[in-house]
Amino acid sequence: MKTRLFALAALAALSTVAFADEGMWTFDHVPKQAIRDKHGVELSDAWLDNVRLSTVRLETGCTGSFVSPDGLILTNHHCADGALAEHSTPQRDLSELGFLARSRDQELRYSAEQVSVLIGMKDVTAAVEKATAGLPDKRANQVRKQALSRLEKENEREATRDSKAGSVWCEAVTLYGGGQYMIYTYKRYDDVRLVWTPETSIAEFGGDPDNFQFPRTDLDLALLRAYENGKPARVSHWLPVDFAGPSEGEPVFVSGHPGRTQRMLTVAELRTLRDLTLPTWLLRSAELRGRLIQYGKTGAEQNRRIQDELPGLENSIKVRRKQLDALHDDSLLSVKRNDEQELERRVAADRALRSAAGDPWEEIARAQGEARVLEPHLTWIERDLGFSSRLYTYAKALVRGAAERSKPNDQRLREYADSQLPKLRQRLLAPRPVYPDVEKLTLSFSLERMREWLGPDDSFVKKLLGKDSPDSIAARLVDRTRLGDPAERKRLWEGGAAAVRASKDPMIELARRVDPEARAVRKRHEDLVEAPEQAGAEKIARARFKVYGTSLYPDATFTLRLNDGTVKGWVENGVPVKPFTTLATTYARATGQDPFAIPESWLKARSRLDPRTPFNLCTTNDIVGGNSGSPLIDARGRLVGVMFDGNIHSISGDYWFDATKNRAVAVHPAILREALDKVYGARALLDELRGAPLSAGSVSVNDLRSGAVAPGPAAGAARRAASGRAASAGRGAPHRRR
Amino acid sequence: MKTRLFALAALAALSTVAFADEGMWTFDHVPKQAIRDKHGVELSDAWLDNVRLSTVRLETGCTGSFVSPDGLILTNHHCADGALAEHSTPQRDLSELGFLARSRDQELRYSAEQVSVLIGMKDVTAAVEKATAGLPDKRANQVRKQALSRLEKENEREATRDSKAGSVWCEAVTLYGGGQYMIYTYKRYDDVRLVWTPETSIAEFGGDPDNFQFPRTDLDLALLRAYENGKPARVSHWLPVDFAGPSEGEPVFVSGHPGRTQRMLTVAELRTLRDLTLPTWLLRSAELRGRLIQYGKTGAEQNRRIQDELPGLENSIKVRRKQLDALHDDSLLSVKRNDEQELERRVAADRALRSAAGDPWEEIARAQGEARVLEPHLTWIERDLGFSSRLYTYAKALVRGAAERSKPNDQRLREYADSQLPKLRQRLLAPRPVYPDVEKLTLSFSLERMREWLGPDDSFVKKLLGKDSPDSIAARLVDRTRLGDPAERKRLWEGGAAAVRASKDPMIELARRVDPEARAVRKRHEDLVEAPEQAGAEKIARARFKVYGTSLYPDATFTLRLNDGTVKGWVENGVPVKPFTTLATTYARATGQDPFAIPESWLKARSRLDPRTPFNLCTTNDIVGGNSGSPLIDARGRLVGVMFDGNIHSISGDYWFDATKNRAVAVHPAILREALDKVYGARALLDELRGAPLSAGSVSVNDLRSGAVAPGPAAGAARRAASGRAASAGRGAPHRRR
Repeated sequence: MKTRLFALAALAALSTVAFADEGMWTFDHVPKQAIRDKHGVELSDAWLDNVRLSTVRLETGCTGSFVSPDGLILTNHHCADGALAEHSTPQRDLSELGFLARSRDQELRYSAEQVSVLIGMKDVTAAVEKATAGLPDKRANQVRKQALSRLEKENEREATRDSKAGSVWCEAVTLYGGGQYMIYTYKRYDDVRLVWTPETSIAEFGGDPDNFQFPRTDLDLALLRAYENGKPARVSHWLPVDFAGPSEGEPVFVSGHPGRTQRMLTVAELRTLRDLTLPTWLLRSAELRGRLIQYGKTGAEQNRRIQDELPGLENSIKVRRKQLDALHDDSLLSVKRNDEQELERRVAADRALRSAAGDPWEEIARAQGEARVLEPHLTWIERDLGFSSRLYTYAKALVRGAAERSKPNDQRLREYADSQLPKLRQRLLAPRPVYPDVEKLTLSFSLERMREWLGPDDSFVKKLLGKDSPDSIAARLVDRTRLGDPAERKRLWEGGAAAVRASKDPMIELARRVDPEARAVRKRHEDLVEAPEQAGAEKIARARFKVYGTSLYPDATFTLRLNDGTVKGWVENGVPVKPFTTLATTYARATGQDPFAIPESWLKARSRLDPRTPFNLCTTNDIVGGNSGSPLIDARGRLVGVMFDGNIHSISGDYWFDATKNRAVAVHPAILREALDKVYGARALLDELRGAPLSAGSVSVNDLRSGAVAPGPAAGAARRAASGRAASAGRGAPHRRR
Repeated sequence: MKTRLFALAALAALSTVAFADEGMWTFDHVPKQAIRDKHGVELSDAWLDNVRLSTVRLETGCTGSFVSPDGLILTNHHCADGALAEHSTPQRDLSELGFLARSRDQELRYSAEQVSVLIGMKDVTAAVEKATAGLPDKRANQVRKQALSRLEKENEREATRDSKAGSVWCEAVTLYGGGQYMIYTYKRYDDVRLVWTPETSIAEFGGDPDNFQFPRTDLDLALLRAYENGKPARVSHWLPVDFAGPSEGEPVFVSGHPGRTQRMLTVAELRTLRDLTLPTWLLRSAELRGRLIQYGKTGAEQNRRIQDELPGLENSIKVRRKQLDALHDDSLLSVKRNDEQELERRVAADRALRSAAGDPWEEIARAQGEARVLEPHLTWIERDLGFSSRLYTYAKALVRGAAERSKPNDQRLREYADSQLPKLRQRLLAPRPVYPDVEKLTLSFSLERMREWLGPDDSFVKKLLGKDSPDSIAARLVDRTRLGDPAERKRLWEGGAAAVRASKDPMIELARRVDPEARAVRKRHEDLVEAPEQAGAEKIARARFKVYGTSLYPDATFTLRLNDGTVKGWVENGVPVKPFTTLATTYARATGQDPFAIPESWLKARSRLDPRTPFNLCTTNDIVGGNSGSPLIDARGRLVGVMFDGNIHSISGDYWFDATKNRAVAVHPAILREALDKVYGARALLDELRGAPLSAGSVSVNDLRSGAVAPGPAAGAARRAASGRAASAGRGAPHRRR
């Protein structure tokens, strides 16, 4: 079955227009004509502007949308879990109880969170290409990063000068694996507060067993609010909610931030994922899951504490398990190989192309040999798989941050460039409970597994562990460090290199000890793997543009995209799956036992609720992790759902889009109204949602800063579009979608 | 690197003589000429007889050898772990303390264990082929099993009548995946006792981190003793120990019971392993590992209890992880494919072959489609992955045993044939502690994962769990069952169908509820997967015999094999690894922290010990799991080591033999002497070992029953030898090797 479906998807990759509802379009290249042809919907510039300016990126890894002029944001419950963790105590567990601010002054600051709105897009491909022209791969890889940091800085300076709208920031975006470089400008809100969430038991009803299943009945919703200068932000773009929701067969759109897809990796790169990256991560994580669950069984408080880690871990396990399944489908690899060979043939047959491109596939394949040698050390040491601890993460950010901030902006590691510092600082200093018992568990576990995977005789491991055991090291570090205190982190961050150097904090000492080895392996990986992969990807992207034209979408990069689809079920093992569930299903599936237990509030409200209320729905939209909380929007620009999941077939969406089975899953707005009204008695919020009229008619693009690429027909480099590959070496876009 | 090595191994599979030291030879087809050519050693019939009759199969999954005329057996510590579990208490943990019987009356009965000596081998291929001739696959598969059960019974009756030597049993053996069927006759000892083992901390020094590593320093030894009629068994064949051990470069031989190799599976079958079987098992087991470890951290007694499960689980995880790595080597699959295609071409070119064989590869490949559909239910329901509990295993054996024993022998499931019942009964009734806490953990875990992998809406899962949770079901069953009591198990076993039917034991009730579904999925799997796989394998085996001749060895089947090799190191990443370690290394590697802590007895004895004493050694012998405890034997027939491990490269031995890197690891006899003498003060045992002179000269073959195939030149069907495939549907040969 899969063979055929994939064959279709592969054809899509080669054709000039994406097949079916595949495609994650940047807002400057929405295929309006194709959408008109397919859905009979004419998307106006005003519609697109309002959708774009109403969509927010949650910087901790999700999407949301403004749903009132007072900065109210609708997103997923699982995107607000950090707020719940921040404000819960053993005596008052917001995850168990849910939360409702009865008035605005009760809204709770979600300290780690920031939200951003995309207000400008500028093509800087020419500048980047000029900077790297003629350089060997390794040098080009360094210079490219320097150029991107410099361009971010220049553009941000300019945008800040022009801005009437408070904080703005600029970020470089690599599209098509290097076929296009952009600077995106965002308006940023640093003060985000929690307004309402239901109990986790109804938000994630069915828990991990039901995760990635549909039909299901999850109220995976939360309301946040953006604040500016201590007051609810006044926004001029938002989405009105249509509580009636969409009909079966209706065209619907998703605006959001898909985290990462890898649809254009070469076969050689996919094999590295299949043989090395995914199995290592999965085996390590499956065991960690077992340790956390077992720890959670030792008491109610222990169980509460692991909820901060466990659901995300389980979600990631399911995602990567299904990704591995997808890569084990040899027919996928063989179609990919045919695709590659076809392009290779075309390149070889064209003298100009041949001399420009060479054999990038071979270059990338050669780099995989180095990747297999370097990846274990890179993963365990530099990417922290051997140091699974929030306290260590703080220590590393402080040690690296101090060292990097002493350098000129364009000489730093990219994640410490000025463009990244506000986010980094906010997350570092945000108060969030750290549980020493859980920290010891995860840190000891990860040290133990690092010893297993790198081997007890590995020189780094030997030096690190000495005559110590993972358990005793973890206990000593966690007991003695003071980094659990945000004030101490603030002191060290602000004290910079001198303060960090003077610190005797054992976690800081550990991070200092690890740092040289971690940097060394990263450097080797950058030079021997990343540089040729990046150079190869750029050449492939350019060859694709030449051969197949320019109307394809780039791989996802946790930047804003629009996707079109339809409300539609599918056929599972010969049995049709309907696109809607209703409240009645929830009560029918309840067992009274976690994770199939209905919370008290819903048991009490049962007689008042309409069992026919639609609960969840599924659509053909092409979404992946990072799209969590994305608004589902109808042709009139109204919010008709909140995306929170895909079905199990959607996970292969990392590598290809399977139009017959891949379904996105959303919460239906009708259940939001029913819940706010009859379960939670949140009338004021419901009034706020109801009182927010369609703003699309009054949309203004005035706040699009000058120089930005305005949506609509355009020409030149920014118009080039073809299948590309995500910068997999990027800063690790989140996979949080449930 | 791997590509080249595997290419060599593949050539070996196609040539008429096995390459390098590859090969697991049955004792009736030892390639004496090749061994003479390669090693300059002439193996006499007397040598072979003595080795064969000195080697014992430990029916719980290992090998050992008689090392004195009084039935003393030398094997691995990790092969005696069941005895330690049986006799340990929270107050006296034999695993921690070790054990030494100061006199024979202190030797401890290891209730579950039996040992067997191979005394006869008879070829019954013609009879089996006659029974199945002309039948369609599905029917042939049933009739074949009936024929094997019948042949076992007939031969056992005859052997028992002729035997002067007490208990004998007969077992059918399928070689070359069905190219040859044999009846093996064993002399059996049901009473096996524990004589000596060192502390686990020195037996498994380095623990899981060092497992499958070499160099290392493990005293992985135990002494058992076979008893007959309540007295130490008098045996006429044993191996004298040469405490000096072998020299580098010396030819050495391993006699033992390799559990299972899969060197002749088709590419399609290997893919099923890679895509489905191994990942499922690994992810499930990695999590279980985490749960057990975390449970062990809750207290010393909890930690003691999980030691009964954990080391075996960790060993299996490492084995299968490396097997998956091997199958991810696309060059392996492509060499296998070339091998297949070459044979296919030869078959197609030969009219007689073509008409006999058809396209067995295609038949097997087609069966994989069914395998992928059926395997999840088969694995979780019938193969008990969803019911990880010793108590459930007892319940299932009782429920099935009662039903099956009511049927005629040849109509039963093969594992309940008369030939299997004595083993089954002994293991079922053996007293062994059952820990309710660990049982609840593993049973709840496995029910939870069954729900995850089959899905919460699977009809079997729904019926089984109802409104219950895995935790509550497991707690109820484990608390209320009485199957932890061997007397209750005996009552039910002996009471047969009536007693089982009348039982209200909740674990029996569970097994009764599961049984129909479990049998149904097994039946479907037998008909749709096993039958065509078996028919295909037989055809391939016959075609191989025709095309490539008859001097190759069959895949391992946990039956007796001889392998030749050399004491030799290898080169790891350019660095030579020497073949011997010494005691000095142990003290140098000790950290004082588990698993690198040296036990008290060795710390005390240190000044008396010679640090230059050889500890472990490695050789080129081709061994796999099941060979644990196998004697390493020199050309003169003396025991010069005890196999207990392979290096990390040896794990791919399941699929092919990599002569340059695959090394077997043994305990050196010198450290046995040093330990018995200076650490444990076990003078009487040392005297017994020293007093056992070379028996090879006086070897007698009188106890080879008439009709058995005697070693030496022979002709006919029994002489046929070519690469075959193991009956992967067999009763699950153990993977216990460390």
